[in-house]
Amino acid sequence: MMKIDDIQRYLQEESMDAALITTPDNVFYVSGFSSNPHERLLGVMVFKDAEPFVICPLMEVPDLKASGWTYEPIGHEDTEDAWEVLAEAAKKRGVPLQKIAIEKSHLTVERMERMEQLFEGAEFSRIDEKLNSMRNIKSEDELVKLRKAAELADYAIEVGCKEIAEGKTELEILMAIEFEMKRKGAEKMSFETMVLSGPKTASPHGTPGDRKIQKGDFILFDLGVVYDGYCSDITRTVAFGEPTEKQRVIYETVRNAEQTAVDLVRPGVKARDLDKAARDVITDAGYGEYFTHRLGHGLGISVHEFPSITGTNEMELQEGMVFTIEPGIYHPDITGVRIEDDVVVTADGVEVLTKFPKELLIIKG
Amino acid sequence: MMKIDDIQRYLQEESMDAALITTPDNVFYVSGFSSNPHERLLGVMVFKDAEPFVICPLMEVPDLKASGWTYEPIGHEDTEDAWEVLAEAAKKRGVPLQKIAIEKSHLTVERMERMEQLFEGAEFSRIDEKLNSMRNIKSEDELVKLRKAAELADYAIEVGCKEIAEGKTELEILMAIEFEMKRKGAEKMSFETMVLSGPKTASPHGTPGDRKIQKGDFILFDLGVVYDGYCSDITRTVAFGEPTEKQRVIYETVRNAEQTAVDLVRPGVKARDLDKAARDVITDAGYGEYFTHRLGHGLGISVHEFPSITGTNEMELQEGMVFTIEPGIYHPDITGVRIEDDVVVTADGVEVLTKFPKELLIIKG
Repeated sequence: MMKIDDIQRYLQEESMDAALITTPDNVFYVSGFSSNPHERLLGVMVFKDAEPFVICPLMEVPDLKASGWTYEPIGHEDTEDAWEVLAEAAKKRGVPLQKIAIEKSHLTVERMERMEQLFEGAEFSRIDEKLNSMRNIKSEDELVKLRKAAELADYAIEVGCKEIAEGKTELEILMAIEFEMKRKGAEKMSFETMVLSGPKTASPHGTPGDRKIQKGDFILFDLGVVYDGYCSDITRTVAFGEPTEKQRVIYETVRNAEQTAVDLVRPGVKARDLDKAARDVITDAGYGEYFTHRLGHGLGISVHEFPSITGTNEMELQEGMVFTIEPGIYHPDITGVRIEDDVVVTADGVEVLTKFPKELLIIKG
Repeated sequence: MMKIDDIQRYLQEESMDAALITTPDNVFYVSGFSSNPHERLLGVMVFKDAEPFVICPLMEVPDLKASGWTYEPIGHEDTEDAWEVLAEAAKKRGVPLQKIAIEKSHLTVERMERMEQLFEGAEFSRIDEKLNSMRNIKSEDELVKLRKAAELADYAIEVGCKEIAEGKTELEILMAIEFEMKRKGAEKMSFETMVLSGPKTASPHGTPGDRKIQKGDFILFDLGVVYDGYCSDITRTVAFGEPTEKQRVIYETVRNAEQTAVDLVRPGVKARDLDKAARDVITDAGYGEYFTHRLGHGLGISVHEFPSITGTNEMELQEGMVFTIEPGIYHPDITGVRIEDDVVVTADGVEVLTKFPKELLIIKG
């Protein structure tokens, strides 16, 4: 359990007694156990000088063991106070519990108040930044899964394009994609699949529906899958029938913006420089007001994680970071276009995980 | 905006200056605006003596207005500090902000620390119980939506049963159900649809896969849809081909347990009495150790909300509460069976929202 060891070393260096990790994605990251406990308590408790444990609902203990967790599993029943079960297990370790690290960006005020009551007098500090910095840099193991998730996303776009036909609805195309993804072994989609057509492409958060595809539509796919716990996230926009000149100009502007940012990726470049480079291309073409969101977001176990690629993030890129680059123009009278790739920062540049072509694909009716 | 008025009255009664509501489901409940902001700030701020506002990402402001929000909308950009935008807007109201109610079961420690810094010297109390008690009792408006969501869930089971055939996979059946639900206008499934067959029925949290349906299998469907913001959640277990005597006994035991609990529902009965009544039936039949979870959970905007139907919940049922009743037996050598209905507490008894028959359905191959 390398990640547990890493956190233990961190606790030793920082003279902290223990850490309680409660974000389901972080529990998965450090323990290998994937679970969505809803409102129930799920956590990994790591100690400076004692054996860690995972606490989870009792009925999930068999799944926890099957996931490869070799340290103590602690199950709590719905009829028990899970926090008392946790405190008792922690105190049984017989080690000091005066300095406890928690995830302040996840632990609720209510849970914090329970912790303060159960570990009276303890000081609480943050473990968030340590976990973020661990997750920020992907290992080769993780990259293998991300590559596979991206490969499936490429294939999903291919399936979607083949489904396009006059009169088909957005939902019909969407379901054909999702069916094929499940057949290919994707655990699930990493978020609600988006298939938007015609004027609906101009809404960055539209909902697919019964609209029928027509000649002259642009069709925007935004989707991703979870493979072995890791997410992909791709967007492609294609034309059904010959596009107008104005549609072409918007498409090529977005494509140019996207490629400009991708080409800039390498260690040492700042996140905000990527956002600026893409935004400048779009602004210079006169569409700045129609690019209404940040350039991208980190990607891994969560579909939105660090690093955030915004115009104000001064963070320098490092080898092993994985994030999306996804500029868009949402023009209410012409069309919406977004193009999104998943990229890895390599030692001397970039590896693009999503490989579906970016030249404007024109599907004949 | 009746719910805003209700919270305002509550603030007046409790002498609180303002409330900040941040759970997406509670934001939807009080404002009518449905949004998943991921890590971004979304909130409704209600004041004792001033106009409320919704704060959300700038690009969602058009959706907020379209949702019917008639008070001030405040958008924040990715490049701004959203908490400063919130504090500034609140201070502009020109009213005292010394006592602020927050959702302690949702607000993170990190966000709480921001609030303490931005509203220096303020006292923070809980608004959770007020919101829970509002949401706990459904209005006729809400019941209309819950009935419709349950009707769709019934139909989903019907679709699933028709799809059952020798050699079909769990996933094929699942996709056919979901496709039909989207066609019928369900916004989305309320959780990951479960179609489990044969030995997999014995895992209360199994994952549908490529297993092919065989004669002698029990097939367990657990699914629900979101309709107009409200969830349903139904489970039915059916037989493919003639069941064995042992399978029949387990089925009838679960059915009897479920019906016993349903028949007990009326105002004044305690939640724990329902759990006990169903559990006693299963324990008396000798299967107590195989019923490993609580009897049910509240249902509404969230698929898991209050009230929780456990063996220790002393809460008395009241007219307008909506929850699931879902006992199960998960026998590793015989079969798993779960039967789940959605019920409303009425003035003098119970209304069962899910109506798919509960006699053991035997599907001929």
